[in-house]
Amino acid sequence: MIVGVIGGGQLARMMIPAAIALGVELRVLAESRDSSAALAARATGDGRDADAVLRFARGVDVVTFDHEHVPQPVLARLVEEQIVVRPGPAALAVAQDKLLMRERLGSLGLPVPEWTRATNQAEVTAFLARHGGVAIAKLPTGGYDGKGVRVLRRPDDADDWLARGPVLLEELVPFRRELAQLVARRPSGESRVWALVQTVQRDGICDEVTAPAPDSQGVSAQAVHIATTIADELDVTGVLAVELFETHDGRLLINELAMRPHNSGHWTIDGARTSQFEQHLRGVLDLPLGDPAAIHPWSVMVNVLGGPAGATMPDRYPVAMARHPGVKFHSYAKASRPGRKVGHVTASGTDLAAVQDQSRGAAAFFDG
Amino acid sequence: MIVGVIGGGQLARMMIPAAIALGVELRVLAESRDSSAALAARATGDGRDADAVLRFARGVDVVTFDHEHVPQPVLARLVEEQIVVRPGPAALAVAQDKLLMRERLGSLGLPVPEWTRATNQAEVTAFLARHGGVAIAKLPTGGYDGKGVRVLRRPDDADDWLARGPVLLEELVPFRRELAQLVARRPSGESRVWALVQTVQRDGICDEVTAPAPDSQGVSAQAVHIATTIADELDVTGVLAVELFETHDGRLLINELAMRPHNSGHWTIDGARTSQFEQHLRGVLDLPLGDPAAIHPWSVMVNVLGGPAGATMPDRYPVAMARHPGVKFHSYAKASRPGRKVGHVTASGTDLAAVQDQSRGAAAFFDG
Repeated sequence: MIVGVIGGGQLARMMIPAAIALGVELRVLAESRDSSAALAARATGDGRDADAVLRFARGVDVVTFDHEHVPQPVLARLVEEQIVVRPGPAALAVAQDKLLMRERLGSLGLPVPEWTRATNQAEVTAFLARHGGVAIAKLPTGGYDGKGVRVLRRPDDADDWLARGPVLLEELVPFRRELAQLVARRPSGESRVWALVQTVQRDGICDEVTAPAPDSQGVSAQAVHIATTIADELDVTGVLAVELFETHDGRLLINELAMRPHNSGHWTIDGARTSQFEQHLRGVLDLPLGDPAAIHPWSVMVNVLGGPAGATMPDRYPVAMARHPGVKFHSYAKASRPGRKVGHVTASGTDLAAVQDQSRGAAAFFDG
Repeated sequence: MIVGVIGGGQLARMMIPAAIALGVELRVLAESRDSSAALAARATGDGRDADAVLRFARGVDVVTFDHEHVPQPVLARLVEEQIVVRPGPAALAVAQDKLLMRERLGSLGLPVPEWTRATNQAEVTAFLARHGGVAIAKLPTGGYDGKGVRVLRRPDDADDWLARGPVLLEELVPFRRELAQLVARRPSGESRVWALVQTVQRDGICDEVTAPAPDSQGVSAQAVHIATTIADELDVTGVLAVELFETHDGRLLINELAMRPHNSGHWTIDGARTSQFEQHLRGVLDLPLGDPAAIHPWSVMVNVLGGPAGATMPDRYPVAMARHPGVKFHSYAKASRPGRKVGHVTASGTDLAAVQDQSRGAAAFFDG
């Protein structure tokens, strides 16, 4: 069994241990020789280069992804050549284009923030007027980790983006908190969900994830319904992450989708019977899915963001590990840049406050 | 941080996921391009070839091992060249030579079976006479997985081995069961022990491991004392495995030693906070050791032995995984040969009988 992964970031990197355990060969098309997943790089190339992708994909049993940025024409070429692509191009299209996503989710009757497709300033003005003078603008394609998202307060705040094409406008949801529901699905239709988790963003980047989300009995069934409906209706295979807002009156609204392992699921490496990376491989290989049950009452994952110092995580292990012997450290072997995700830590246990202290304390050793 | 591993078997293979998580570069000197640990192979070569080993070792921070078969002259060359070797040659010598092992353990006052060094048939006859006409003969060097071990009942049963040199003779211990105590130690002296485990051998090969060993309160402190004494006194760094006999009257006797991750510790990948592979890397890198606590009340690991059919483990995943969603599957990507270890499975949970059923049931899918 050979899985080809387009993109060599940390998500591809974290698929490698799962592939090693299963005895599955993982081949990565990496951006460069020093990509995070370079160990499994079979080729270097750009996921937007159809010829490079085709050359790479010949001989693998299934192609999957580290990111959502492989263009539809490239995906179409793969399908033409009888190469199995999971998730498939039609599903991926919905994750690639936020306008298409809003349309599809709305047509499925799933709860989304109020939104519109704006093509000119007049439409922005009208949307702002209907929503108390504030809105979220999103570029339909290409955004990630807070890039391509902006708060609008004035009609001309999106002019530069409108000059490039339509913009998604959404109401600014006054949420109580953010949640994420991950589900894995295989082509046969079997799906499995992990615990609903609570996420905390900082500057648009996922910063801390608590599994399970505290006090979530009231919303967890709805989250599972939303995630499994999307997976089934869009025919998603592998892991689907659904980022959600929980409103002050206890409703869930869909914020974003990702059709791949997701930062909100990194806790599953150390905290669940089957990690999102193993489950993604099982899903795209159409193998039976593993038990996603949590193995600790609480797991808390905290991202490590690179600072200006350029120090690597391992440089600070001597002190961090001595202080936190039960914490799991994950370094992505990426060069440090301010604000760049370079790793994460996960603590698990029976006392949430202690687990938070452990994970935040350990992550703090790598700050700045 | 760069760790060089001499030998590309499944132990080196299972170090790769731990190295990926920690962001440590692992370089393997593999026997061939299709070695189990080929993914991390930086070079192919023979661990007995001093030039190949030296070429490989330049540029790594520490050299460690997948097996005990690197000869002392090769280790001496590494030390001469200022290359850090862990465990060090003096410690490894004790694991490489069973006669030396018995001498050192005896001089440390640790409990070993009655033994002698036989160089001729008369000494065999005398030993048999003192031990009821039966003894275990072991080649001092080069044995593994039941190879180089033989039951003697007649004075001439070891003649072929005696023609090659001295032979270790031991009493045949009428043990109640076999146990194994694993400890990890770093150069600074810090050491950490995992739970004492029970092992079941079949044809000289470890077949099933139960963690913790049931009903072991009475012997576990003694097992820890034995293992930590050996680690400290021999200056072992990384993982040390001590295979033990538990006698019918509740004594422990040391059977074998291994100074590397060991089959009796594979359960730690899925069943302990810190796996033996991560701990070995931490130990040889002189990093603080991780928490070795079990994360489930019971874990049971069962080896998968290759059969004549030549089928790989992944061929049988569709049925095995459907039946056992909570079991963790580990394939070593080795060609199947009768009796060859090609993988293992681990189940964990709160009910030992159920955990045994799961692990044995899952392993059975890969038999023959």
